[in-house]
Amino acid sequence: MTRHSATLAINERLQARRAAGEKVLHLGFGEAGLPVLPQVGEVLANAVQRNGYGPVAGSERVRTAAAGYFTRRGLDTDPEQMLLAPGSKALLFGLLAALPGDVVLPRPSWVSYAAQAALVGKNVIGVPVPPEAGGVPDPEQLEARLSDAVARGGRPGVLVVTLPDNPTGTVAAPELVARVCEIAERYGLTVISDEIYRDLRTTEEFRSPAEFLPGQVVITGGLSKNMALGGYRIGFARLPEREHSSRLREELIGVASEVWSSLAAPMQEVAAWVLDEPEEVTAHIAASRRLHSAVSSAVHEVFVQAGAVCRAPQGPFYLYPDLEAFRPTLADRAIGTGHELAEYLLEEHGVGVLAGAEFGDDPAALRMRVATSLLYGDSEAQRWEALRSSDPVSLPWISASLEHLREALDALAKP
Amino acid sequence: MTRHSATLAINERLQARRAAGEKVLHLGFGEAGLPVLPQVGEVLANAVQRNGYGPVAGSERVRTAAAGYFTRRGLDTDPEQMLLAPGSKALLFGLLAALPGDVVLPRPSWVSYAAQAALVGKNVIGVPVPPEAGGVPDPEQLEARLSDAVARGGRPGVLVVTLPDNPTGTVAAPELVARVCEIAERYGLTVISDEIYRDLRTTEEFRSPAEFLPGQVVITGGLSKNMALGGYRIGFARLPEREHSSRLREELIGVASEVWSSLAAPMQEVAAWVLDEPEEVTAHIAASRRLHSAVSSAVHEVFVQAGAVCRAPQGPFYLYPDLEAFRPTLADRAIGTGHELAEYLLEEHGVGVLAGAEFGDDPAALRMRVATSLLYGDSEAQRWEALRSSDPVSLPWISASLEHLREALDALAKP
Repeated sequence: MTRHSATLAINERLQARRAAGEKVLHLGFGEAGLPVLPQVGEVLANAVQRNGYGPVAGSERVRTAAAGYFTRRGLDTDPEQMLLAPGSKALLFGLLAALPGDVVLPRPSWVSYAAQAALVGKNVIGVPVPPEAGGVPDPEQLEARLSDAVARGGRPGVLVVTLPDNPTGTVAAPELVARVCEIAERYGLTVISDEIYRDLRTTEEFRSPAEFLPGQVVITGGLSKNMALGGYRIGFARLPEREHSSRLREELIGVASEVWSSLAAPMQEVAAWVLDEPEEVTAHIAASRRLHSAVSSAVHEVFVQAGAVCRAPQGPFYLYPDLEAFRPTLADRAIGTGHELAEYLLEEHGVGVLAGAEFGDDPAALRMRVATSLLYGDSEAQRWEALRSSDPVSLPWISASLEHLREALDALAKP
Repeated sequence: MTRHSATLAINERLQARRAAGEKVLHLGFGEAGLPVLPQVGEVLANAVQRNGYGPVAGSERVRTAAAGYFTRRGLDTDPEQMLLAPGSKALLFGLLAALPGDVVLPRPSWVSYAAQAALVGKNVIGVPVPPEAGGVPDPEQLEARLSDAVARGGRPGVLVVTLPDNPTGTVAAPELVARVCEIAERYGLTVISDEIYRDLRTTEEFRSPAEFLPGQVVITGGLSKNMALGGYRIGFARLPEREHSSRLREELIGVASEVWSSLAAPMQEVAAWVLDEPEEVTAHIAASRRLHSAVSSAVHEVFVQAGAVCRAPQGPFYLYPDLEAFRPTLADRAIGTGHELAEYLLEEHGVGVLAGAEFGDDPAALRMRVATSLLYGDSEAQRWEALRSSDPVSLPWISASLEHLREALDALAKP
């Protein structure tokens, strides 16, 4: 059966605890906890008359804007290559339904890829990520697993990568992406590159797989993270150029037309306005990026100081600490798995995180995903203040959260 | 592969012809061609700050409103029984994915049920509708097909009915619904009752299967038809009472959480306001119902006068005429199937309809689905005038469309 997505489930659980008056440090959910840019609200308010279904892929206007977004990023794009949908999650589902073959996933990777593959009856081949960054499989292990799968009569068809990555918060370096693409090409895999955190990365070093394999890479993205519009459900997919993708486009539109019809028409207006990237949008995203980076870096420091091993965050508001060093003291509390650790942190310290096992990682590992994007404040005023602050970490409500976490980790480390 | 939904595809095709300046009579698509009630626009404009993901099933507020909608219709409903989604289509997909067993469908029935069943790998058992009304299978044939399927080791698990019906435009009478439910109960089928046209029916005679089999009927609905908000993508499902449906709810939330996450938060505000049914909403739906009924009745008359056999419309803006009487003259034009007839009507007469085969009907039959809801005008002003008119059929743009159809059918009938 299909379980409630772990990320959405912990969000509901933590929200309910908060509503019941408990003091909870919500590090469980990747919602960009920032307010709506006022001009976005105006665009939506001006689009309320848009009640027609319109084309499944989205209007010409929004597809043109979305194509421009990629063209400005060095990937020439025709509006025909673009599809809009109620969230990139829906498009990822549609792609996994439409593309043939087994699905290769980095481990750990975002919770929904494997669940979606199962929903459409596809096999999953998990490959560990390399030590330096998540979001892509380790090239040597990828090669070994593919050759093994083919030898056994398997049919690997799709590789999903996440650049920048959720859950590790890192960005795979261009040479690593190039190596993975070379292997994908050799095995004839279609690559789905989930780039929903693309605009939030803090490193200049970034190459999309679409730059290496233009004919066989689909990029997905949306406005949930860069513009903090998760509740608007706006996602898009960029297919390869027409000569490589006309059948895939037809299949994807087929699935879309039978599952969700189209992105809500008023939301298409919002998407078109944002994807044209007026100055207000660019400035808002830049401010958001600074805030996400400042807070995730501060939380990273708390984990490292407490004794955890953790890759440094590179834009997405996630950390993926490994508390293996705590194992002896945790064993005294009958904690031997990531799940037990996450439950203990929630029950004993009011700290909500997700165990690495939710992302396909080894259940015995004491790793967890920490989302730092819901620390910016409980009110809209606090969130605007955080967004505008040159030193957000020193704001009292943010520093109090850091202190809450520090105390929890210190207590964990003690025998 | 999954094809582009026939209804959405013909809409795009006809829109493109119109945009190219062709005179097209758009009878191909079940979009309620009416304007947005101004207060609905205000609610959406006031909800632009709602950018959080929120619970997968929808907020407490909107589920409470949706439960009230059903409770006022004689079906006591707890908010826990309700789920919101971006369109009832998404929920139908989720239900077909979550419910075990083969899927029994009336033939003809709405284009997407069979396509969705195929997408999740389910077998379809098609059963013809009775002569008097569509939307339910003929009871005797249903019994025969189920007993046959079980004897062959099949596992029928789900029956989908459409009340009122698309494509036939009829409402199955209560005694017919009761007979079908009795058979469904005997075979342990879960019934999905698609009631998205419920508020538009013109007959008082209506019983939902949920009244006969409260423990095993899921009702789906939405605001696309009654409120003409197709482009807003607002749908809902009412599950059986908790003791009968806790596992189904969990499964459905699982699928929802992995495919679309939730209905867009601002759209949840719209849904909550509408489903509370303030007086403006009730009056708007009543006016829409009168208009749909007047125009579909007039189109029905045109078909009958031309010599077609056609059930009288009972609310949904559809007709399902049978042009068997035209077969000899059509044969002279090399038209022998419903598809050929639909193509001919479009190419030679600029009349866009869908062949019955798109709805699972016999491809050789000269039956087609005629949607009458896009005849109300090309401008918002014309649509408001149609909605307020006591005699909409006499408005020049509507009577011109009727004349266009009359001429096309007269030409068809001639040798």
